Amino acid sequence: MYSLMIHGGAGTSRDLEAAAPASDYRSALDRVIGAGRDMLAGGAPALAVVEHCVALLEDDPLFNAGHGSVLNADALVEMDAAIMDGRDLRAGAVAALRGVANPVRVARHVLDDGRCVLLVGSGAARFAAQRGFERLGDEHFVTPLRLAQWWAWRDREAPDADGAERGPTGTVGAVALDREGHLAAATSTGGRTGKPAGRVGDSAIVGAGLYADDATCALSCTGRGEDFVRTVLAKTVAERSRLAGLTAGAAADAGMAELARVAGSGGFILVDRSGACAARFNTERMLYASIERGGEARFVV
Amino acid sequence: MYSLMIHGGAGTSRDLEAAAPASDYRSALDRVIGAGRDMLAGGAPALAVVEHCVALLEDDPLFNAGHGSVLNADALVEMDAAIMDGRDLRAGAVAALRGVANPVRVARHVLDDGRCVLLVGSGAARFAAQRGFERLGDEHFVTPLRLAQWWAWRDREAPDADGAERGPTGTVGAVALDREGHLAAATSTGGRTGKPAGRVGDSAIVGAGLYADDATCALSCTGRGEDFVRTVLAKTVAERSRLAGLTAGAAADAGMAELARVAGSGGFILVDRSGACAARFNTERMLYASIERGGEARFVV
Repeated sequence: MYSLMIHGGAGTSRDLEAAAPASDYRSALDRVIGAGRDMLAGGAPALAVVEHCVALLEDDPLFNAGHGSVLNADALVEMDAAIMDGRDLRAGAVAALRGVANPVRVARHVLDDGRCVLLVGSGAARFAAQRGFERLGDEHFVTPLRLAQWWAWRDREAPDADGAERGPTGTVGAVALDREGHLAAATSTGGRTGKPAGRVGDSAIVGAGLYADDATCALSCTGRGEDFVRTVLAKTVAERSRLAGLTAGAAADAGMAELARVAGSGGFILVDRSGACAARFNTERMLYASIERGGEARFVV
Repeated sequence: MYSLMIHGGAGTSRDLEAAAPASDYRSALDRVIGAGRDMLAGGAPALAVVEHCVALLEDDPLFNAGHGSVLNADALVEMDAAIMDGRDLRAGAVAALRGVANPVRVARHVLDDGRCVLLVGSGAARFAAQRGFERLGDEHFVTPLRLAQWWAWRDREAPDADGAERGPTGTVGAVALDREGHLAAATSTGGRTGKPAGRVGDSAIVGAGLYADDATCALSCTGRGEDFVRTVLAKTVAERSRLAGLTAGAAADAGMAELARVAGSGGFILVDRSGACAARFNTERMLYASIERGGEARFVV
């Protein structure tokens, strides 16, 4: 029996409510997890399902990924995304990528190509062009809300002194267990408002922002990216789950303890190989939805 | 009492001997580990020692990092480096960086700056310029050997079909335990000959190519980068060491078993918090030197 979780980022209630009413987020998550469920129920592989769910979240301007991504210090959109197959630990990722509507689909091409795991910057854009992805101008990605957030960032006195994420918009992600018992994870983000050009967070880093391993679990993280990179959080949770024979919930708790070592901020969603779902976050809010072992969809917004 | 290990890459005997006699590698390692020993004996912090040792290895054209880096598919030099402080898990990294003599010193600036962990491509180059690093032309980096290796790569029928590393030149690295009991790790590389522009291997990825945590160990990896990225090898070894109370050697063996899950190729050096040294590799050769708890330097070339 299949399981599926998706998330739309972690952050504060103030920022969440400034962007849209909670009902809008819930509707968006409902539509995406419904599409994922239809695929899983029909026997689709977890890898295809997490790619499709993340691409839908990228297309929705409510979320900080793809269309609706935040702007970096140069007022440009640079995006990170990754996808991982729990069957064989194959993975593909892109970072600091500009001008592509669905970075997660480029990451999937990197995975299928198999020669590299991570491509960045202009090299990633060139790979995307070679694979037939349309090159879009920044105007495709920028929404009035993200421009307003960028203006607010620029007008702050010490705009990036604390390196904090802004808004419930850290990233989007999906994790799934398919009917064949295979796990997969995918993550995508515009990063944080005002980030320096070339900054890569956890979303493109296998083991930090995501991990999928049929022997343990699949997870996707959101929050202050550097905290997840330094603690290598996704792989750490997978290791705790495997080594000590922990349940999904106990492994998730161990992950939050590791994040606390760096006073980290954020959370993650997790599906283990038995189909159990778990979510943890230490921010005010995290937006997510889950279907555990084919049951009713649950929403937290 | 201090411990120190350095490495100069893993690969085949044929490639090693084509580049230089083993005695040249041994002399180079001797000089670098001697410089590191002087610093540690004088009370220098592990972080400064691993930065200095890796910068010396970058400056030596024998090794694939800094001056002497291999050429990518465009016949250009793009370099990855990272450094990590075991005291507080702070880290800095750069990837796909062009035109800077010592990428590990830029990574150290990223660490000290603290706002980001990983900067890539032109954004990383801009950060380096802002920090006063001189911008050098590619002619500074390219040696006749690397140009010959690039020609050989270009003339192969399926030049990157297997994604294999060429030569005993995967990367350089250093790990240290200082007299205060703090651990640090650093890694630097030119990647692999003929890599696509924008490809990032494990050397710039915290948890894949390096990790340092005072609670467990410090390690630096070398080999086929993607294998280390997919297994998140460095953090995995640190986790095995911590969770099961394993010795350095037993944790290292567990790491090689993890690498075998993806038929991975390469190795690593490791110093644990007690000062014990370990090294493992599944290639024909790995070039390294170690000083365990202030003792005599040992060399494997």
